[in-house]
Amino acid sequence: MNPQTPTILPPSIESVVETALYADDLDAAERFYVDILGLALIGKEAGRHVFFRVGVGSVLLIFRPQSTLDGGSGFPPHGAQSPGHFALGIKADSLDSWRQYLRHKGVTIEKEISWPRGGKSIYFRDPAGNLAELLTPGLWGTPAGW
Amino acid sequence: MNPQTPTILPPSIESVVETALYADDLDAAERFYVDILGLALIGKEAGRHVFFRVGVGSVLLIFRPQSTLDGGSGFPPHGAQSPGHFALGIKADSLDSWRQYLRHKGVTIEKEISWPRGGKSIYFRDPAGNLAELLTPGLWGTPAGW
Repeated sequence: MNPQTPTILPPSIESVVETALYADDLDAAERFYVDILGLALIGKEAGRHVFFRVGVGSVLLIFRPQSTLDGGSGFPPHGAQSPGHFALGIKADSLDSWRQYLRHKGVTIEKEISWPRGGKSIYFRDPAGNLAELLTPGLWGTPAGW
Repeated sequence: MNPQTPTILPPSIESVVETALYADDLDAAERFYVDILGLALIGKEAGRHVFFRVGVGSVLLIFRPQSTLDGGSGFPPHGAQSPGHFALGIKADSLDSWRQYLRHKGVTIEKEISWPRGGKSIYFRDPAGNLAELLTPGLWGTPAGW
């Protein structure tokens, strides 16, 4: 490498702050994420989106793709129809409570996995078919414990 | 409400741990997220996925939807073709460095937004067309500062 053209390294990234999913029925999404999963509603625009806070530093965005794909709002277009996927971190000792709670709410658990490295996951669907996962610490070996 | 049938509240959720995006070309995705954005590669299966750690507690998953939609692996099916969206949190004082760095790497910034509540965002695309955002603190008012 030419010492006169040093490599420029990227500045740091702290975390994934926003995760986007897509749903045609935003009212059903709001009921699911607030009334069942217990997330805090932090933004809403009829026909376009519902936004939720997760824990102290994550934000879950649910968009109606017909609205966000046209780019008419001046916001760069994005959007998908097929089922997305995401995982929410839960405390290790809350997995049994979550399993019982979801059953009580009529949410079908589609799959359970115990990971070789540690951590367990349960999978279920939101009303739009997105694949939600609840995950206990240990799978990834991140410094934060996940 | 009947006091003999108490409401069962959901156990807590700590954070969004995994965020999934989709890309047909996983090699291009790996080059972009490792060589340009500087993320750490933490998992890889040829033709199916590349996984990255972000900061101390977030994981970004890039799946090839042709592989994950068929469910043949025993993992519940998911996957999308259209462009998804996500936001990565950066330090407030690194936004100028990021802008300069992306320009140096030939990444086109598609949009910049200064949010009324605080925080600034820059938007650009990954090789699959997913809409990436770099976000400084202040937009959402989360306890962690985002």
